[in-house]
Amino acid sequence: MKNTDKTMEKIVALAKGRGFVYPGSEIYGGLANSWDYGPLGVELKNNIKRAWWKKFVQENPYNVGLDAAILMNPEVWVASGHVTTFNDPLIDCKACKMRHRADKLVESWCEEQKRADVNVEAMTSDDLVAFIRDNGVTCPGCGKSDFTDIRKFNLMFKTHQGVTEDSSTEVYLRPETAQGIFVNFNSIQRTTRKKVPFGVCQVGKSFRNEITPGNFIFRIREFEQMELEFFCKPGTDLEWFQYWRTFCHDWLLNLNIRDENLRLRDHEPEELAFYSKATTDFEFMFPFGWGELWGVADRTDYDLKQHQDHSGKDLTYFDQEQNEHYIPYVIEPSLGADRVTLAFLVEAYDEEVVDAEKNDTRVVLRLHPALSPFKACVLPLSKKLSAKAQELYASLAREYMIDFDDAGSIGKRYRRQDEIGTPLCITYDFESENDGAVTIRDRDTMEQVRIPMEQVSAYIREKIAF
Amino acid sequence: MKNTDKTMEKIVALAKGRGFVYPGSEIYGGLANSWDYGPLGVELKNNIKRAWWKKFVQENPYNVGLDAAILMNPEVWVASGHVTTFNDPLIDCKACKMRHRADKLVESWCEEQKRADVNVEAMTSDDLVAFIRDNGVTCPGCGKSDFTDIRKFNLMFKTHQGVTEDSSTEVYLRPETAQGIFVNFNSIQRTTRKKVPFGVCQVGKSFRNEITPGNFIFRIREFEQMELEFFCKPGTDLEWFQYWRTFCHDWLLNLNIRDENLRLRDHEPEELAFYSKATTDFEFMFPFGWGELWGVADRTDYDLKQHQDHSGKDLTYFDQEQNEHYIPYVIEPSLGADRVTLAFLVEAYDEEVVDAEKNDTRVVLRLHPALSPFKACVLPLSKKLSAKAQELYASLAREYMIDFDDAGSIGKRYRRQDEIGTPLCITYDFESENDGAVTIRDRDTMEQVRIPMEQVSAYIREKIAF
Ligand SMILES: [Zn+2]
Ligand SMILES: [Zn+2]
Repeated sequence: MKNTDKTMEKIVALAKGRGFVYPGSEIYGGLANSWDYGPLGVELKNNIKRAWWKKFVQENPYNVGLDAAILMNPEVWVASGHVTTFNDPLIDCKACKMRHRADKLVESWCEEQKRADVNVEAMTSDDLVAFIRDNGVTCPGCGKSDFTDIRKFNLMFKTHQGVTEDSSTEVYLRPETAQGIFVNFNSIQRTTRKKVPFGVCQVGKSFRNEITPGNFIFRIREFEQMELEFFCKPGTDLEWFQYWRTFCHDWLLNLNIRDENLRLRDHEPEELAFYSKATTDFEFMFPFGWGELWGVADRTDYDLKQHQDHSGKDLTYFDQEQNEHYIPYVIEPSLGADRVTLAFLVEAYDEEVVDAEKNDTRVVLRLHPALSPFKACVLPLSKKLSAKAQELYASLAREYMIDFDDAGSIGKRYRRQDEIGTPLCITYDFESENDGAVTIRDRDTMEQVRIPMEQVSAYIREKIAF
Repeated sequence: MKNTDKTMEKIVALAKGRGFVYPGSEIYGGLANSWDYGPLGVELKNNIKRAWWKKFVQENPYNVGLDAAILMNPEVWVASGHVTTFNDPLIDCKACKMRHRADKLVESWCEEQKRADVNVEAMTSDDLVAFIRDNGVTCPGCGKSDFTDIRKFNLMFKTHQGVTEDSSTEVYLRPETAQGIFVNFNSIQRTTRKKVPFGVCQVGKSFRNEITPGNFIFRIREFEQMELEFFCKPGTDLEWFQYWRTFCHDWLLNLNIRDENLRLRDHEPEELAFYSKATTDFEFMFPFGWGELWGVADRTDYDLKQHQDHSGKDLTYFDQEQNEHYIPYVIEPSLGADRVTLAFLVEAYDEEVVDAEKNDTRVVLRLHPALSPFKACVLPLSKKLSAKAQELYASLAREYMIDFDDAGSIGKRYRRQDEIGTPLCITYDFESENDGAVTIRDRDTMEQVRIPMEQVSAYIREKIAF
């Protein structure tokens, strides 16, 4: 099934109906665009984070992990530039009072008008105002073209830490995890005794007060990131950029994302941030179109230099072999955990015609088994066998997330597991007690094999290997 | 080594020096009482969270997981009572202007005066003021007894979500994860088709604007919780309370916490919150004294009832067997991930005299192997063997977090691993190439065994089983 044939309605309905993702604070009418991961969603997302950690930290000899606090000294965000430049350009329609992001307004207009020549990302606020005026861009709300000036709205959430107004400090909820890595660069290098090149990986929540969140968990205000900052010697940076660009690409392909649903968009020189030597956006074909998934950027020595200048602390690295000090260059692959979760759900979603004559279609989530919430489901063929099947369940549950289902016909139970992506269904039947074997049904092929019970654990292990 | 013989100075120095925990935003002079988990700390903490998830979710047939958002509809905190009652009673010394928490002031005073009869937790603000006045409690700053009235300071961090002042919503950073479970009770029950009794587990950040954070990661403003809300039929609640009280106790003991360092303090009837039928505080012997680790409480139907009343949504459960509707009772074991991380560090810390004559003492972290940041370290006996040893490292790293160290004498390398709690050191020597075997040294016994390389993975698996 092609991603373009899938609809967000179906994905969202499955996610809500089976307990992957619920609307946040739903009994109170929700909180705009907040989402809670349900029992299956938390397993899926944790498995994604683990698969990332496994390849980026555990198996990678260059990298180590970090878990920095969300609340940081506010000077961090002055140094990083977020206080002054992390803004959305807001503009109001004078006629109908609708509020827009000026860049998104121009972007949609260009798409409608098939103006592929316009590079909105490279436009300043003045450029945007001029473009709207010169081209008579209209308000999607009322069709008029009568706008206010652009106001800059900082996207960082603010709060106060400390006990009273006079003694409290205004602090921000971090808008990205990356800065936690940069400010710890010295400590990490010193305590791990790592030599350049090395990288630091982090998974954690970030917060952005977006004006236009949306598309389910694709763009949310409270989101989770998986970021690597890879420190290398200046001059070797473009090689490492390619290394990580390929590494990230392979990670997605190895987890069942099809290449036809990926687009690796290399930034043109004029599109690059002024400090960046190379940037690639990984885009994924969502039901609503191409959406950014992963950004891989060569950020040169910009971040460490900013922090060195601003903090007054020496952030150079001493290269013993070369006997020289330098500020390492940084390659940053930055991935959104929530949107990649959505990507895996979309990619995995399939409707398969099992029997056209009987109009029998099954919904199956073809998740990579390493990502599936449950690795297997134990099904007693009859309720009479439940106690024995429970024993098998309990022994497998010591190693894996396992479901147990003894309600309804075996066919219905298979379908319920297909829909949530469980790779294996293990049926305990009347023969099992005698032959010590069970039947294992494969989610994707629907084929069945009979194997001795003591081999089931190894069978699962092999199936979920990543 | 007794916990009382350990000092926070040593624990903190080891944590900072080896990359378990760094001061947050350190290059900017820090942010009061914020801490970042370094490369070893993030592994330790993740292992603790996994060990909790394994026993509370994966292996437990009653429970499922959840990951709700930090930002929730503010009505949640009205219903839960946090908006009106989640306050610290602040009091200022008029003489020296020092600010105190009135309850802590009274508590310290009672300790000094050996007044064991006073139950500070049960005191209202008026009680506290009266007690301070009647007993002439003095200010630790200046010794005078001249205080202002008590002002209530709400501990929730506030922020604004939405684009402009007029359209934005004041929202709170959640002060506990529990409410995310209560508001999702219906959705979880419906989508999992779980029958009461069942429980919902959650791990996540919470935020409390404490006036007196301190003791390293024991009390911090941004902290992580591991909470279970277990829903059961009224009348069965005290049985389940005992079940979870024992379950939590076993979890700690099985992870190498010694019972002599635990105190399970059952609340007296007058000490209980008005809605609670039973509460036990698990206290641990930290170097600074007994500190609360885990709270297990029978919260009756208080929370679900509050949300039902406040939201107008029916939160009763329909018991099919009994054909009746009821609001389940809740047992809540609530554990702080950061403070239990500190507890494991403290408990594991040991100084062992290896050779008294040579004045040779080793520092060893006797962490349960399931919690150790690295499961093993591969050590080539000589740098000439590094390439071959790297191959072994790479194959083991596919399954476990493995360290590699080829710098310095083998004795020094052993000690470095002891200090960070690595249970096994695997030495690749000049014989290894011929006999295909390696020497494994045990962290605790320092004994060595020689085993074939292909058995190393299974050896590690058995060692870290939990
Ligand atoms: Zn308009
Ligand atoms: Zn005073």
